[in-house]
Amino acid sequence: MMNTAESSWESVAAAKRLERDEKIPPAWRIPNELLPAKDVKSVVRWPAESGFFTEHELMITSMTATALVEDIASRKLTSLEVTEAFCKRTSVAQQLINCVTEICFEDAYARAKHLDSILAETGKTIGPLHGLPISLKDQFDIRGLDSTLGYVSSIGRPAARNATLVELLLAAGAVIYVKTNVPQTLMLGETVNNVFGRTVNPINRNLTAGGSSGGEGALLGFWGSPLGVGTDIAGSIRHPSNFNGLWGLRPSNGRVSYQYVTNTFVGQEAIRSSAGPMGHSPADLHLFMEAVVGQEGWKVDPLVLPIPWRTAEVEAVRKRKLVFGYATHDTLVSVTPPYRRAILLVKEKLEKLGHTVVEFIPKEMVRAEELAIKLFSADGGLDFATSIEASDEPYIPEVLADWGPLLPKAQRPTVSDIWKVQKEREELGAQWYEHWNQAGIDVLIMPCVAYPAKPHGGSDTHLYSWLAPLLDLTVATFPVTVVHGELDVYPSDYTALSEKDKVVMDWYQSPSRFEDAPIGLTVTARRLEEEKVVAILELLEDVLHTSIQ
Amino acid sequence: MMNTAESSWESVAAAKRLERDEKIPPAWRIPNELLPAKDVKSVVRWPAESGFFTEHELMITSMTATALVEDIASRKLTSLEVTEAFCKRTSVAQQLINCVTEICFEDAYARAKHLDSILAETGKTIGPLHGLPISLKDQFDIRGLDSTLGYVSSIGRPAARNATLVELLLAAGAVIYVKTNVPQTLMLGETVNNVFGRTVNPINRNLTAGGSSGGEGALLGFWGSPLGVGTDIAGSIRHPSNFNGLWGLRPSNGRVSYQYVTNTFVGQEAIRSSAGPMGHSPADLHLFMEAVVGQEGWKVDPLVLPIPWRTAEVEAVRKRKLVFGYATHDTLVSVTPPYRRAILLVKEKLEKLGHTVVEFIPKEMVRAEELAIKLFSADGGLDFATSIEASDEPYIPEVLADWGPLLPKAQRPTVSDIWKVQKEREELGAQWYEHWNQAGIDVLIMPCVAYPAKPHGGSDTHLYSWLAPLLDLTVATFPVTVVHGELDVYPSDYTALSEKDKVVMDWYQSPSRFEDAPIGLTVTARRLEEEKVVAILELLEDVLHTSIQ
Repeated sequence: MMNTAESSWESVAAAKRLERDEKIPPAWRIPNELLPAKDVKSVVRWPAESGFFTEHELMITSMTATALVEDIASRKLTSLEVTEAFCKRTSVAQQLINCVTEICFEDAYARAKHLDSILAETGKTIGPLHGLPISLKDQFDIRGLDSTLGYVSSIGRPAARNATLVELLLAAGAVIYVKTNVPQTLMLGETVNNVFGRTVNPINRNLTAGGSSGGEGALLGFWGSPLGVGTDIAGSIRHPSNFNGLWGLRPSNGRVSYQYVTNTFVGQEAIRSSAGPMGHSPADLHLFMEAVVGQEGWKVDPLVLPIPWRTAEVEAVRKRKLVFGYATHDTLVSVTPPYRRAILLVKEKLEKLGHTVVEFIPKEMVRAEELAIKLFSADGGLDFATSIEASDEPYIPEVLADWGPLLPKAQRPTVSDIWKVQKEREELGAQWYEHWNQAGIDVLIMPCVAYPAKPHGGSDTHLYSWLAPLLDLTVATFPVTVVHGELDVYPSDYTALSEKDKVVMDWYQSPSRFEDAPIGLTVTARRLEEEKVVAILELLEDVLHTSIQ
Repeated sequence: MMNTAESSWESVAAAKRLERDEKIPPAWRIPNELLPAKDVKSVVRWPAESGFFTEHELMITSMTATALVEDIASRKLTSLEVTEAFCKRTSVAQQLINCVTEICFEDAYARAKHLDSILAETGKTIGPLHGLPISLKDQFDIRGLDSTLGYVSSIGRPAARNATLVELLLAAGAVIYVKTNVPQTLMLGETVNNVFGRTVNPINRNLTAGGSSGGEGALLGFWGSPLGVGTDIAGSIRHPSNFNGLWGLRPSNGRVSYQYVTNTFVGQEAIRSSAGPMGHSPADLHLFMEAVVGQEGWKVDPLVLPIPWRTAEVEAVRKRKLVFGYATHDTLVSVTPPYRRAILLVKEKLEKLGHTVVEFIPKEMVRAEELAIKLFSADGGLDFATSIEASDEPYIPEVLADWGPLLPKAQRPTVSDIWKVQKEREELGAQWYEHWNQAGIDVLIMPCVAYPAKPHGGSDTHLYSWLAPLLDLTVATFPVTVVHGELDVYPSDYTALSEKDKVVMDWYQSPSRFEDAPIGLTVTARRLEEEKVVAILELLEDVLHTSIQ
């Protein structure tokens, strides 16, 4: 591509954006007169209201992945028409919320046609995802496309091979058509970088789409994808899923291959990032997991565990009454009012169905955050610096704000220091399981964060999302409600749990800052309980809503 | 216990040995007139030939664990008489080959009586190991006993709780009666330390029992235990099993709990040590694995994987013809003559049964050794130094020889350096699986080391045992033959593969240095294939010998 020795980082990045934008067919570029004004917050209804889409396209792009694979398999729809509809809606999403990094529509059409012809000729699908378009976070290597992670220095270095997960998805019948935006460094809750700029939330463009799988979250929130793949090392599937009204699963490590995935903190293994699905229904997450696990990735990837999809576990959970723990704080910070309302709503509905719901305060979370941050920052920012300094681009302000104290000038821990932290993590894990077993709960219901999607540019004050990756627990998010102007004001009798609790409350201020922001909760289980979690998400969907639209 | 501030390390260690020796009942102390002379090499026939044991005791202590649990369950034998017989043989073993660290015979008798009375009253066993004595490597914490790992500084610090594996074994019905010796630091192939001294090989006391589970290997080699538990991070189950004519399994991590186990390199997680069984038959390893996995350790230990014992896998392997790879070198060092003879013997026998046997050269092993050593020595010896310097004991010469260059004065790698090594390991793992899949083999047959059990005091020149732990592959050893004075001389047409190969050959010299030394091979599989490996060990037993006695 561009030769950075001759060009400024700005021009290299601009050329990369232009290359991407030129892959959007002219017919799908929004005419100026149809473009919503910059200050229009919500664009989620634009496809239906603008007249830019046919009824058929709108119908296809409102279907869940589960419904789409059924209709493709029964030849009510072709993969090609489904793929084209999502490519079009993705093209529009890119223009309204800036969520895309790499486009490969032409390859997708060829693949879809090929799958349609196989089905027409043999009457059989090649796998459970036959013909389904799937979007992927920028990290997943696709032969011939960049995986820049938003670093200027990584522009023009196309991947030589597909990530193993891409191969498994293709073997299951998927159509790959787009990759989505991430933050510079991957280690932020806001999706912005110097190459592709800032992704915004389709429900309210003043708010963050979350991060680091924020491009994926925003694209799915706009229904530009029926099913997406994110990664999560500290909340990166959960936060964007939560902030965009989606269902998202962070499996424990070893269920979904992470081989040949471009990553930050290269070689860091103390806390492993996990790949998982983000989508529009728990059935869609179930479809993804069963399809991917069914490809037996452990035969090619030493880090995939040979655990088949355990249908018996799903059925066992469906049949019995469950014990849910719930938490409205972690001893340090309480949830803000919309989350409290969501938790109590879920509690009430589960109890009506005869399930038991007990308070379970995850006091181990505060320590988990301390340990996780020590492990992440163990190289003193050297990995970040290497990627940044390979071009002359600057750190974005959000990285400096959140990670500045850890950048290279800081005192770097020794290997022995890290071994001590790892030993403490092992002890924390034992404590967590003892606490869990004493309570006798099946899963824990609480948010992954105390506050709704933030206005852009803010820093994360406090998260509940560190413990699950630190101990590699299975965790998922589900949408419950949206911020409500009257119901979600701070109660007059609020008393702060801690100084930090007061900071969070003062920052929340008023629900009017978070207009329409989705409010989701998480289901946390033990390690490697993906089947249980999926079954419980399906139960929660029945309890709460049959569709989130 | 002793106050080290007032006593020399020698007197503290001597007191510890005295405390141990006093737990051997006077009736079981060998009279001087019966003691074999110091220069008597083999003591394995002493129990049968000395008249010190009754026929009944000799019968019990020649039975496999599988036969013992059957006879206890059917009340042909009581747990108490079985336990007493092994306690007696262990007492004798200690006096002849110095393999024991902690003794708890009285607790074992009480436990055995309790189990006998439960069986008498209910007619039922409490689990698959009901009444079976099991010996454990010193690392496994047992409430009230030390886990010194041979460090003077750890004397007199009894464990406050049982290791989770001990709890699981007790729940399955085991009787715990003894812990066994290890090298100072645990990171040696020779079992010797300043507290308990040197363990020797019962088959030839001039030779090493191997390490680090050398106490366990020697005790089992003497039939002082029906079933033992070792740990293996670089060969520590395999080498002592091999050198003592045993069957040993190093499972992949997560099959057998390692929680609350005292360890060296505290907090080091880049390569994880694995706990596994050592014993007298593949059926005994099978019994152990099925019993332990059946206790569902994943409910209490976050690092245990929720993978039940997969009987269907065992049966599937039994039914089909298999493809075996075999190797006589790793591109750098060839096996010495007895191992070549063993490999060709196994190859011939397998082929006669209709299995396919193809050459598969594990060229990745040389790189695996480099990476593993970097990961182990990443703290620059600080962990060793901390344990040594907490008393005034010196390093033993073997530690200085093998690890001296890595002790504290050395340049310590940074966390970033280690991340780079971990990334290379991930790449090596992918290469290994590609190589493996291309060859289409089920398992690889080769030794874990090029040479037989060494005369005491030697250093390890080259091992084949690093790759499996580095990639967390399932691996097991099985006994094949013993060194033969005429068959195992170096062929006249020997040509060296490399300088290092020549060093090994020159060091081997002649089979007469290794009189009676057992020669075993290993079965290496993919990760988490314990069921397949156990089934193949059972096949190999049928092929090679029905008993190793």
